[in-house]
Amino acid sequence: MDIFNKTRALFHLPEGMTYLDGNSLGPLPYAAQERVDAMIRDQWGELLITGWNKAGWMEQPSRVGDRVAKLIGAEAGHVVMGDTLSIKVYQALASALELNPDRKVILSDSGNFPSDLYMAEGLIRTLDRDLELRIVEPEDVEAALGDDIAVMMLTQVDYRTGRMHDMARLTALAHDAGAIAMWDLAHSAGAVPVDVAAANADFAVGCSYKYLNSGPGGPAFIYVAPRHADLVNPALSGWLGHASPFAFDLNYQPGAGIERMRVGTPPVIQLAALEAALDVWDMVDMADVRARAVELSEMFITEVESRCPELKLASPRDATQRGSQVSFTHPEGYAIMQALIAHGVIGDFRAPDILRFGITPLYVGEADIMNAVTALQNIMDGRLWDRDAYKVRSRVT
Amino acid sequence: MDIFNKTRALFHLPEGMTYLDGNSLGPLPYAAQERVDAMIRDQWGELLITGWNKAGWMEQPSRVGDRVAKLIGAEAGHVVMGDTLSIKVYQALASALELNPDRKVILSDSGNFPSDLYMAEGLIRTLDRDLELRIVEPEDVEAALGDDIAVMMLTQVDYRTGRMHDMARLTALAHDAGAIAMWDLAHSAGAVPVDVAAANADFAVGCSYKYLNSGPGGPAFIYVAPRHADLVNPALSGWLGHASPFAFDLNYQPGAGIERMRVGTPPVIQLAALEAALDVWDMVDMADVRARAVELSEMFITEVESRCPELKLASPRDATQRGSQVSFTHPEGYAIMQALIAHGVIGDFRAPDILRFGITPLYVGEADIMNAVTALQNIMDGRLWDRDAYKVRSRVT
Repeated sequence: MDIFNKTRALFHLPEGMTYLDGNSLGPLPYAAQERVDAMIRDQWGELLITGWNKAGWMEQPSRVGDRVAKLIGAEAGHVVMGDTLSIKVYQALASALELNPDRKVILSDSGNFPSDLYMAEGLIRTLDRDLELRIVEPEDVEAALGDDIAVMMLTQVDYRTGRMHDMARLTALAHDAGAIAMWDLAHSAGAVPVDVAAANADFAVGCSYKYLNSGPGGPAFIYVAPRHADLVNPALSGWLGHASPFAFDLNYQPGAGIERMRVGTPPVIQLAALEAALDVWDMVDMADVRARAVELSEMFITEVESRCPELKLASPRDATQRGSQVSFTHPEGYAIMQALIAHGVIGDFRAPDILRFGITPLYVGEADIMNAVTALQNIMDGRLWDRDAYKVRSRVT
Repeated sequence: MDIFNKTRALFHLPEGMTYLDGNSLGPLPYAAQERVDAMIRDQWGELLITGWNKAGWMEQPSRVGDRVAKLIGAEAGHVVMGDTLSIKVYQALASALELNPDRKVILSDSGNFPSDLYMAEGLIRTLDRDLELRIVEPEDVEAALGDDIAVMMLTQVDYRTGRMHDMARLTALAHDAGAIAMWDLAHSAGAVPVDVAAANADFAVGCSYKYLNSGPGGPAFIYVAPRHADLVNPALSGWLGHASPFAFDLNYQPGAGIERMRVGTPPVIQLAALEAALDVWDMVDMADVRARAVELSEMFITEVESRCPELKLASPRDATQRGSQVSFTHPEGYAIMQALIAHGVIGDFRAPDILRFGITPLYVGEADIMNAVTALQNIMDGRLWDRDAYKVRSRVT
């Protein structure tokens, strides 16, 4: 697919590095560096405070949100950028609970990203009214959707294994059970085709620094279904979510729709990087990206299993149930990943024993996959890892 | 004071612009542009995910926090950067309320920045347990400190008039009344000498894009007094505030001290701009900055009052009761400010009738003050403003 040669050329990939960690932090799009530099020089430098109007900083969170909306199947005008994913989880969950006030249980699974669970825990403790965070195994979510569930809060793609929930099906089941469905798309947006509107999701949140390549600490996004957008009353009711921020009223009045999910001053510089990074997405069709990711993932699995039999596949074998990453386990996974990194192949390790590899066709091709497998085989065959590395790490954490 | 010629040379100030709005958004330090560009190229570009360790991104919020700590008189290790000021207000207020669980009233004043009041409103609504936000006039705070006050939540310097509360005195009175004292230093940090430790403040929060010059959307800071730092249980309990973020436990355990006030992934690019901007502060003594700001402010007041008698001083006349800004009122303030901006003098307008000018000696000198006064006099004498401008604005907001 020729288009991926074109997109690859838009990213800086360090000489000698095979980068299979775009599911953690996407690489630098050259355009992002240029855009940030120009924004700082021409907007911050020259316009100063007038940049809020003249350079459109004030509308930037919604303008960029509309572009992210396209990647997750959201209706235009229903996604806004800002803050971090953890903050957006808190906002969405607080609103979801408020839409279902007579129920007491937040249902999640053990494959959710821990920060989502921590934020829920903090919200429950803050609310102090008998709520329960019930964490089941991912395969038990469906059975756990009883009539006590207020909110089903899930991350679609498991950050460890890449196991992917069926968003449309679970959302429908949640609704049948009278629950609100809230999805974390951290490992979905830009990774797999997503259609929050078709799935009828109530809330969705995600981050931009993984598959969307906005750089370290890039802003998060939040989606609120149109049917709820003017009903929710924000827990984090900041001035930029106010109906008239510059009236400086002493009382809060929520802004129209998704605007009320804004909180404080948006991170204009990080948003500039994201805006440039999103240009790459205008060149491709998500279905093509997905097809290519599946092709590369299958190749990676086949090669690793035949050449490194000690590694056990931790991801679903069925590509339709897998996000855009492939994970293997090994008892010395940490040490093996350290050795791989020393050999120029960047994946990452997740406790207790997972080696995780992101498959990101915008800039990863067959040669990268084969490089990674060869390095992995050399390390496994030659026992080229430090058996004490994991012990060292265990002491540190 | 020669040092201010040196510091002025470190900022980009657009040709023909007199910038008296550094209390809203500080101008670009050349070093910030260079630092961000280098960070993006050498760290994001070359290190990618390994930047979290190799480039020290993970420690950046505390490392930068220690530098901000020096500017507000905080103990090292008790300030951390991240999120927006509104989020930090929520965190501090939730923690403050928890330290005083038997009381029901949050006391604030009508000079507080509205977003702080909105965040309090949102927290109260979320908590849903009979709390009250009591807003009095700034001069009535002292008398309102009764035995029902849980938290006194104030912004030290009024964003409209520059009127400055006596932090040490009010904190002592709040403590005498059994209340927790929480200070917003948005218009104090880098503006006036602050000593949160000597004042015995319980919590302090602030932003970095005003007097600290970190650029649009730069991160906020939070200070928790050492005596509380290991007691507070964060409402916004995100993974980077966890004791072991990379253990990926399913349950939250707060990190040590101020680290628990971290929430999600830090905005690494915006933090790089802030780090460079803070270098300027290493060159100056806050007492000298303050002395120079008072001198320039006195000059500005004297000149405006003698040459533009229609403008009424809205700031305290006594410099010891004034932050680093000067405000005047006029019924057609909005239109006058628009005319001033058209003449290359940037201040800002705050409803209903305030013309606000930031006095920032790092890059503003006597010539700027005199330019501004001359432009203002020309506009007032020549009636060079559009009387319909305010009507237009009134329809918009």
